[in-house]
Amino acid sequence: MRCEVVAIGTELLLGQIVDTNSSWIGEQLALAGIDSHFQVKVGDNPDRMEFCIRQALERSDAVICCGGLGPTQDDITRDVIAKIMGVEMVRDDAIAAHIREIFEGRGRPMPENNLRQADVPVGARSIEQMPGTAPGLVCPITVDGSDKVIYAVPGVPHEMREMMLGTILDDLRRRDGDTSVIRSRVLRTWGYGESALAETLADRVNALDTEGHATIAFQASGIEGIKVRITTKAADDAAAEAIIAAEEALIRELVADHIFGVDDESMETVVLAMLRERGLTFSAAENLTGGILSSRMTALDPGMEVFKGATIAPHGTNESARALPGEDRAVAAAMNAREMIGTDIGVAALAPLEGEEHPPGTVFVAVVLPDRAEAKTVALPGVLSRMRSYAVITVLDLLRKRLAESG
Amino acid sequence: MRCEVVAIGTELLLGQIVDTNSSWIGEQLALAGIDSHFQVKVGDNPDRMEFCIRQALERSDAVICCGGLGPTQDDITRDVIAKIMGVEMVRDDAIAAHIREIFEGRGRPMPENNLRQADVPVGARSIEQMPGTAPGLVCPITVDGSDKVIYAVPGVPHEMREMMLGTILDDLRRRDGDTSVIRSRVLRTWGYGESALAETLADRVNALDTEGHATIAFQASGIEGIKVRITTKAADDAAAEAIIAAEEALIRELVADHIFGVDDESMETVVLAMLRERGLTFSAAENLTGGILSSRMTALDPGMEVFKGATIAPHGTNESARALPGEDRAVAAAMNAREMIGTDIGVAALAPLEGEEHPPGTVFVAVVLPDRAEAKTVALPGVLSRMRSYAVITVLDLLRKRLAESG
Repeated sequence: MRCEVVAIGTELLLGQIVDTNSSWIGEQLALAGIDSHFQVKVGDNPDRMEFCIRQALERSDAVICCGGLGPTQDDITRDVIAKIMGVEMVRDDAIAAHIREIFEGRGRPMPENNLRQADVPVGARSIEQMPGTAPGLVCPITVDGSDKVIYAVPGVPHEMREMMLGTILDDLRRRDGDTSVIRSRVLRTWGYGESALAETLADRVNALDTEGHATIAFQASGIEGIKVRITTKAADDAAAEAIIAAEEALIRELVADHIFGVDDESMETVVLAMLRERGLTFSAAENLTGGILSSRMTALDPGMEVFKGATIAPHGTNESARALPGEDRAVAAAMNAREMIGTDIGVAALAPLEGEEHPPGTVFVAVVLPDRAEAKTVALPGVLSRMRSYAVITVLDLLRKRLAESG
Repeated sequence: MRCEVVAIGTELLLGQIVDTNSSWIGEQLALAGIDSHFQVKVGDNPDRMEFCIRQALERSDAVICCGGLGPTQDDITRDVIAKIMGVEMVRDDAIAAHIREIFEGRGRPMPENNLRQADVPVGARSIEQMPGTAPGLVCPITVDGSDKVIYAVPGVPHEMREMMLGTILDDLRRRDGDTSVIRSRVLRTWGYGESALAETLADRVNALDTEGHATIAFQASGIEGIKVRITTKAADDAAAEAIIAAEEALIRELVADHIFGVDDESMETVVLAMLRERGLTFSAAENLTGGILSSRMTALDPGMEVFKGATIAPHGTNESARALPGEDRAVAAAMNAREMIGTDIGVAALAPLEGEEHPPGTVFVAVVLPDRAEAKTVALPGVLSRMRSYAVITVLDLLRKRLAESG
């Protein structure tokens, strides 16, 4: 099964928008075992759009057209597909009613133009998922005696993604004669190197090589940690879920508390959720991390209900603490932030003082909880800017582990 | 003149890398008045690469191939172009020597493979700019009796950009029979709305419409402010520079101190440079901005030599200041940061206290200099996360203006 992507929009060619959609679609196709040999960007021009879509149909089994489904005169993807199919367009009353409802729900008058979005080529069906006002389309077409398909999805990334994951990927594989579903889950880990993690999970990887019902893949993702992706092909969602859950349980036994989250969860969202659940607040001494922790936390907790603030100052300015060893200085800094800002918990990340002998990349992190303090020394890679980001995740991970213990 | 872009690399199709190069090239082509109707991504496959490049040559006058110029066996752009040109490859001794020098300069042994990068199709010339170990190529080719050209540039963005700006854009326009150069300069402004700025500059825009030797375009860029792009077409660099400098002077008279920088300068880099030049340090009260200012400053000033730190706490926690009006509270917060952290200058951005009646988006910003304090009230657009970023630029802009006055 081969599927191409045609990204539509003059703004893409002019560089006003970077085409991240094709990349994401390409990744999803690869994960589903579907080849994608060409991806094309073309402007809002009917002849050139037709040319690109026809060419993609000639050399592949399917083509995903992304963009050009809006309500304006520029949005001609529907019309071009109807022309290629050799059919008329017909207004889909159910979609038209749904679009009206969306506008009513927002309390805004609907420009009549918007109903163009309810026009569907005869023989096409709309995609069930419709998070915006633009319906996606599945358009079957016969090319030189072969059954092929054109999909149309909006250029708005989250709308496109919902339709890809909800309909298109499974539809593609069914067309390939494969009625199974492919599902995957990503376990997010922190604190392992890639080879150490691979070693820890080597038995599971080998077992799956033999058993064949699932695969495990590793992806080192910088400050996002190392991702462990479990992928399985099963008869249906329920069967896939059972296989993934069983494999996840086995991996969790081996990797234990290095797993901080699942799929799109980040360290920040996980820690924030744990604190919120426990009704705890926290603050930070960002001497080393220079505001990175704060800006990420305030982005996720805009009202600063859980993350209450930070102190940021260059390393070692607190004269009275200079005589202490690194870990104790980190504890002192975390305590200071906790007291100054008045929170349940304080955290800190510090670099060694000038003149102290430590390997490059040495960082002292500390977490001060209501009933105890803990610090550790870690060696982080990279230049200062990268080390700062690593230090943020390292100190949050320490906090996460202590919160997990406290239940 | 029409020019297509072929981005080469299986990793682009698999979504492991987002193709930002094509977008940037598309933008540059548009600015140079060159049409680009199609942009294609293709994997490291010789037949499919050949197909894409041949097709682009059929329907356009030029094609820019981006990527596949590295030293590994996967990197076959050179070979495919030689095949399309119908010529052999020949090793360019000067390039080979230069590559050897680069490795010697880094004190690293050169894998023999790297000399593949010095292989050039017969009849092609290498591009003068060569910031890495991959030379760019200009490959003239006759297609159906027409003189056309294939350019090859590395996929490393900064290397590609240097070659585009240094050679390819001018070469394209010369081939178009146009020996003039197109040059542009962006004046970065803050504090104007787009329509107000357009009104202020309306006379210049109209004058240029008549005079025709340059154009002015506006681009609203969110927290990057509004960009005013002066573009001119002139006989050579010196003539273009003279026209742009004259137009810039006229615009600066009208827009005055709303212009904070030129081209790629950001508000942060400009303020940091001004402080550094004057030997001044600063700190911030990030009650509203929640670490955004700090994280940007520490990214640009990793040693925290100029930006010395910040205090971050939720709005209005300083009980003694609660009775003050908003602007005075902002001054108090800036003074507090300045004293606590021990810097020459303190800045602050605060939101109104709960219960205070202000229009949505009201923010109080303050700058405390060694010899005076200043505050102002601004109305910023958008949701909280966006407002925070705007507040950072607004307070830095106030600081910039005061520093500019002090010379």
